[in-house]
Amino acid sequence: MSDLRIGMIGYGFMARAHSNAYRKVANFFDLKRKPVLQAACGRDKKQLRAFAKKWGYAAMETDWRKLIERDDIDAVDICAPNNLHCEMALAAAKAGKMILCEKPLAMDVKEGKKMVDAVTKAKVRNMVWYNYRRVPAVTMAKQLIDEGKLGRIFHFRAKFLQDWTIASDLPQGGTALWRLDVKAAGSGVTGDLLAHCIDTARWLNGEVDQVSAMTETFIKKRKHTLTGKVQKVGIDDACAFLARFKNGSLSTFESTRYARGHKAQYVFEINGEHASIAWDPHDLHRLEFFDHRDEGKLRGWRSIHITDGDHPYMDKWWVPGLQIGYEHSFVHGVADFIQSLETRKSVQPDFKDALRTQAVCEAVLKSAKKGKWVKV
Amino acid sequence: MSDLRIGMIGYGFMARAHSNAYRKVANFFDLKRKPVLQAACGRDKKQLRAFAKKWGYAAMETDWRKLIERDDIDAVDICAPNNLHCEMALAAAKAGKMILCEKPLAMDVKEGKKMVDAVTKAKVRNMVWYNYRRVPAVTMAKQLIDEGKLGRIFHFRAKFLQDWTIASDLPQGGTALWRLDVKAAGSGVTGDLLAHCIDTARWLNGEVDQVSAMTETFIKKRKHTLTGKVQKVGIDDACAFLARFKNGSLSTFESTRYARGHKAQYVFEINGEHASIAWDPHDLHRLEFFDHRDEGKLRGWRSIHITDGDHPYMDKWWVPGLQIGYEHSFVHGVADFIQSLETRKSVQPDFKDALRTQAVCEAVLKSAKKGKWVKV
Amino acid sequence: MSDLRIGMIGYGFMARAHSNAYRKVANFFDLKRKPVLQAACGRDKKQLRAFAKKWGYAAMETDWRKLIERDDIDAVDICAPNNLHCEMALAAAKAGKMILCEKPLAMDVKEGKKMVDAVTKAKVRNMVWYNYRRVPAVTMAKQLIDEGKLGRIFHFRAKFLQDWTIASDLPQGGTALWRLDVKAAGSGVTGDLLAHCIDTARWLNGEVDQVSAMTETFIKKRKHTLTGKVQKVGIDDACAFLARFKNGSLSTFESTRYARGHKAQYVFEINGEHASIAWDPHDLHRLEFFDHRDEGKLRGWRSIHITDGDHPYMDKWWVPGLQIGYEHSFVHGVADFIQSLETRKSVQPDFKDALRTQAVCEAVLKSAKKGKWVKV
Amino acid sequence: MSDLRIGMIGYGFMARAHSNAYRKVANFFDLKRKPVLQAACGRDKKQLRAFAKKWGYAAMETDWRKLIERDDIDAVDICAPNNLHCEMALAAAKAGKMILCEKPLAMDVKEGKKMVDAVTKAKVRNMVWYNYRRVPAVTMAKQLIDEGKLGRIFHFRAKFLQDWTIASDLPQGGTALWRLDVKAAGSGVTGDLLAHCIDTARWLNGEVDQVSAMTETFIKKRKHTLTGKVQKVGIDDACAFLARFKNGSLSTFESTRYARGHKAQYVFEINGEHASIAWDPHDLHRLEFFDHRDEGKLRGWRSIHITDGDHPYMDKWWVPGLQIGYEHSFVHGVADFIQSLETRKSVQPDFKDALRTQAVCEAVLKSAKKGKWVKV
Repeated sequence: MSDLRIGMIGYGFMARAHSNAYRKVANFFDLKRKPVLQAACGRDKKQLRAFAKKWGYAAMETDWRKLIERDDIDAVDICAPNNLHCEMALAAAKAGKMILCEKPLAMDVKEGKKMVDAVTKAKVRNMVWYNYRRVPAVTMAKQLIDEGKLGRIFHFRAKFLQDWTIASDLPQGGTALWRLDVKAAGSGVTGDLLAHCIDTARWLNGEVDQVSAMTETFIKKRKHTLTGKVQKVGIDDACAFLARFKNGSLSTFESTRYARGHKAQYVFEINGEHASIAWDPHDLHRLEFFDHRDEGKLRGWRSIHITDGDHPYMDKWWVPGLQIGYEHSFVHGVADFIQSLETRKSVQPDFKDALRTQAVCEAVLKSAKKGKWVKV
Repeated sequence: MSDLRIGMIGYGFMARAHSNAYRKVANFFDLKRKPVLQAACGRDKKQLRAFAKKWGYAAMETDWRKLIERDDIDAVDICAPNNLHCEMALAAAKAGKMILCEKPLAMDVKEGKKMVDAVTKAKVRNMVWYNYRRVPAVTMAKQLIDEGKLGRIFHFRAKFLQDWTIASDLPQGGTALWRLDVKAAGSGVTGDLLAHCIDTARWLNGEVDQVSAMTETFIKKRKHTLTGKVQKVGIDDACAFLARFKNGSLSTFESTRYARGHKAQYVFEINGEHASIAWDPHDLHRLEFFDHRDEGKLRGWRSIHITDGDHPYMDKWWVPGLQIGYEHSFVHGVADFIQSLETRKSVQPDFKDALRTQAVCEAVLKSAKKGKWVKV
Repeated sequence: MSDLRIGMIGYGFMARAHSNAYRKVANFFDLKRKPVLQAACGRDKKQLRAFAKKWGYAAMETDWRKLIERDDIDAVDICAPNNLHCEMALAAAKAGKMILCEKPLAMDVKEGKKMVDAVTKAKVRNMVWYNYRRVPAVTMAKQLIDEGKLGRIFHFRAKFLQDWTIASDLPQGGTALWRLDVKAAGSGVTGDLLAHCIDTARWLNGEVDQVSAMTETFIKKRKHTLTGKVQKVGIDDACAFLARFKNGSLSTFESTRYARGHKAQYVFEINGEHASIAWDPHDLHRLEFFDHRDEGKLRGWRSIHITDGDHPYMDKWWVPGLQIGYEHSFVHGVADFIQSLETRKSVQPDFKDALRTQAVCEAVLKSAKKGKWVKV
Repeated sequence: MSDLRIGMIGYGFMARAHSNAYRKVANFFDLKRKPVLQAACGRDKKQLRAFAKKWGYAAMETDWRKLIERDDIDAVDICAPNNLHCEMALAAAKAGKMILCEKPLAMDVKEGKKMVDAVTKAKVRNMVWYNYRRVPAVTMAKQLIDEGKLGRIFHFRAKFLQDWTIASDLPQGGTALWRLDVKAAGSGVTGDLLAHCIDTARWLNGEVDQVSAMTETFIKKRKHTLTGKVQKVGIDDACAFLARFKNGSLSTFESTRYARGHKAQYVFEINGEHASIAWDPHDLHRLEFFDHRDEGKLRGWRSIHITDGDHPYMDKWWVPGLQIGYEHSFVHGVADFIQSLETRKSVQPDFKDALRTQAVCEAVLKSAKKGKWVKV
């Protein structure tokens, strides 16, 4: 088992989730390469030191360019704000490093294209961390669709609801709240939350043909964390859109950070000719399934507890009935990434695939701005 | 369609539920005889008049013996407190009237036996209103067991939880609160609530062999509604028991009026070799069903919405998806009673069957008193 | 208690639901006027006779004009297909009868306006049967909003999902399937199902400002029940739309008859500044409620069992914990209609109010056709 | 941060769960001592080697006595079958090692007492792995009770249902199935599953006064995994008991491995004067809570998603809305154990506390055997 030496850029929430995944994966999966937490990078020395110590990173860098240039790094993990993804990825590709980049891929399609070109040219392995694909219940949804259990698909609907920005005195910007700053994030819920929904939708239901969207910014001005100035809010607080998919199905998407009672309710439901599927990450270990081919009087939505050995990834964990959680989706991502290194096939979603999700996001924002249907 | 002239004794909650059932049944079921609300009987003239007017009873009596003797009555419905069931039923049988008696059958087995003897001797049709058997979801549970869907049964568990007597200043006795007065009710939750559980259990799972029980009276003294005197509380506030059924299955039963958050949570669950069933009257239009013979990875509890035309009784009501409620179980009781008049077969549970439920209740109370296992 | 003599046009599903409501209401509510099933009207004599007998209608008419002209009728109840509402209402208004009309009000806004003018001119009482407003859980949602429990409203979302038209060999038209025939129904799910959602939304959240919609007809051709000919399907099988309300809230609506597993899942959810509310008629006796003002660590969605005496309408029915069902919403409608007769205030929704719902439906269909946002 | 060097006995399911906890704890908690996986011990060399490699144990031993005697071990973790706990613990105490022992403490009270004496005499830190106490929802239940949110407690009920031994051809004994072999396990569901329920019950509701129990062995004979011989099954497949607690509350407990549809459904519910609490590990991140002191019409069971920073342990993990799983309860156990080392107070449950749980188990088995109530 050779090492896969990781260089981590960032020390926030996602950097913790990824570090945990790298550290755990070899205890549960049989892999040819074992991730090693080689070096961590961040601007604030004190925070960086605390992070590196906590996770056992051997080395530290405060300049991300130096991290990328290190000889003892095989793969760069980009957990910086969205506005840095492109520049970092271009440098990493140039340095011949594998890249694992947080979602969304980029600030816009233009940047995303550059990134795809860079990794293609450099022939470096690349992945975007759309982790929900690897929650076992979601992976099983994909299996059921591929097996034809649903038949023709009529409807796909998704919503991602949160409630953490309702307070009008919440500031924008800075390390903790860069997601509210349009310069760092590119957009609000569209890139942060709907991007997840779109990634899953495309995986399960194919490509989107056209969209009609609306967005809203409920709190128009917020103080900036760093400058203290009250500034216009540039992000979308909420976004909803209608979509027509290439397979003829109809779809609704919605996301907001103004839905009391929902911390991270990302629900999707698919209605097919024979069966329907629904999932909610608030109970991520369950898959709801309705099969019209069941005996008539006994038809009902089944709540499947996705904890058995015949469920995706679950033979690696505990015993039937025992839940895994959010963090495990990242472990699965690392496992799949490493296993893909032995094959010629890229792990999905790679940059190329994530660019298509970016294109849908861009079409959504454009539709909302123009007030009309937009082709993706 | 000839008339079935009803003489109703009582004007409380149950008298309303039964009157509603008599009035509605012919609008939904095709029957040879149509119930007619002929005469109502109760002690308080003012209340009786209001009740009779509300429901359209043609005549009134304040003496139940006179009601029973009326020539224009075909069937007597006993909705009086438990301590009057026996005497009234004996008189009604003697007068050759059909009898529909509220549950529980009697104060004890001794009384119950007299009642069975009386109706047997008089050859009058008789029924006890254990209405839960006729909630469509419960009727379907019976069908599934009879079809062998469950296979050998290992476990039956039931609980009936309420929370309406927790306040220590609630009085006992009188018209509204006779259920708290041991002289009128005979027992507390055992006869009022567990009797329902036992009736359903026997119907679904066969006869009980032996029980070990405990009871408790949490509030030891209460003021009496009529006398105003603070008196010892004679009823059981809570009762739980273990049971072994003749089919070898193990069982737990519990009932209380001290379970915050439960208004009328009568849940039962049955675990068989192949499948399990669960039901809760708080959502009485749903049956929970788990089938081990489903494809492995797709096994899950199904929540069956019992509102389709192929569900018991449901072809008589609305369209799929639309709920019926509590009152409809009584309508089904009347429909089945009337349909049984055309056959030689008694509708169930009749007095004879209800006597066996009474015997289990008596064994439970005896076991709790003696602190040991008791054979039924 | 004087009589309120009803003339019923129709003998289908809705005619049964209304007849049941008229027959029951006086057993549960204290009213000054008591509905009497005076005369029923329908084209098919045999079916009409069966219906009239079942419900005890004293007289029958096969020509609806004759029914309306009868002297012994106080109110006309229109349960005919949508394309007949306008003509019948105009005649009834002219004859000075009160009118209770099934929803949607009319085929389009043009017809609706004529109807409003007619009842205004004739000064006859009028109501449209949007029954979901009177499910106690929905009525309570309205109370909570009016009490300010939610504060500023950010989001309203609704969907009405069914699955009964997926089979491609299901015909269109005729008595049973007129809802699939565009000539009789005017539209598909928009008028049949979304109209309900829009009525409730307007009641709870105020008027709609603009919409962007899409519709789809999945099965393009169906055999006609009466002619046997395979014809183009003119109705919308599915419809989804984005809406902006005048209060600044964002909204999504969706309806389809192609969602496996949903018989009549009409879910709405409202997200306010302080609290959120959700309801699903598949469990119509429950209201889901989340209150951010609860103690932090104890915040959670409450499942309120709307069966207590302090819940709307519930003091009229049974005891806490015991469900009522779908049919009771119509009983409440009749009760409110009769009580309104003693006041100068029209019961809601009347024709005028229902016209605004019609206007939203029309804007939705126009938006879908044109592919752009439409002002209501 | 000094090391806490762990010597692990066993390489099965529990050894994995504990090893994972030792490895993760310092990434999430701030601790003075950091667990180090020093040496692992097991009889089968091949399996041991695979286990040690997977988890990074530095050394291996095939004789547990040698492991205990090693100088480089601070604490011994006993994950061997129940019949070895006592002997191992006595040796570890004698060697002055801290002891973390899997539950149940011992085969019986007699053994348990020896173990308590040994650790008391040797003054070594000790803990028993009743991990469910440290699921955040369960810890919060304890907090709520301690805060007086429930008031006087009337009822406690618990059940632990599984379905993995229904097949009659499942053998007993050996490494994987020692839980079915009475010689290795001591008892069936009583020691394996009810012990968990009793531990939690005692923690939340105080000591048990007396019990009345029944047990059953549905499959009477099974082939032994090692010998191949068909032998009598000595364990209890199912056990149910009534209990009276010293605080006057009534209780029912039930456990079985014959309940189709339940993989590990360990549900408990507590009914207090003011509020009720319920929990189910199938959704271990939720706590159900009903508060009678809520505004009347708004009372309902709240489903609290225990993933916020103000919920027990949750500030150490991710962000609100994101679930942790089963394994995290062990991480919390290690964290609490290590934090307790800095204090004079033993972490709970220690051997002494677990002995009381053992005493209840013994009373239960005795009651079932004798068929009468037994004082604990």
